[in-house]
Amino acid sequence: MIDSIEILGLIAAVLTTVAFLPQVYKTWKTKSAESLSMTMLLVFESGVLCWLVYGFLIDSFPVILANAITAVSGIFLLYFKFRYKN
Amino acid sequence: MIDSIEILGLIAAVLTTVAFLPQVYKTWKTKSAESLSMTMLLVFESGVLCWLVYGFLIDSFPVILANAITAVSGIFLLYFKFRYKN
Repeated sequence: MIDSIEILGLIAAVLTTVAFLPQVYKTWKTKSAESLSMTMLLVFESGVLCWLVYGFLIDSFPVILANAITAVSGIFLLYFKFRYKN
Repeated sequence: MIDSIEILGLIAAVLTTVAFLPQVYKTWKTKSAESLSMTMLLVFESGVLCWLVYGFLIDSFPVILANAITAVSGIFLLYFKFRYKN
């Protein structure tokens, strides 16, 4: 039983991590970040960086990996938000 | 030491949870969800729902609370995405 619970946690981590990739692609492709909230991007990126440090401190590879990928997505989205400002 | 690590984890959870509230507010206020990726919203919401079930299965109140709030934000954003389609 513990195994299927851990698998569900891993599926959850993969989904909430890869979710931002189509957003990065769409924002890059359309060159539009108009309806993305800057506050959301900044608060979210801060949270993800906290998760990343937390992952290192508790020595959890899944937490480190998921949040490292999400942090990179977040940096791209912040860059696009500044770049495509109108 | 374990206490400050747990506090960092809680700060991370709070930040990545509340991050979506300004996005929900902005999308509702501007009636524009144009640059939000539908794929991102659907994959993210699926992931958050997995986290929520996972939270119940491991009996973790912070995981349940954070993901319940994020799930509601995600449902609002999906609703806006359909509603404000142009």
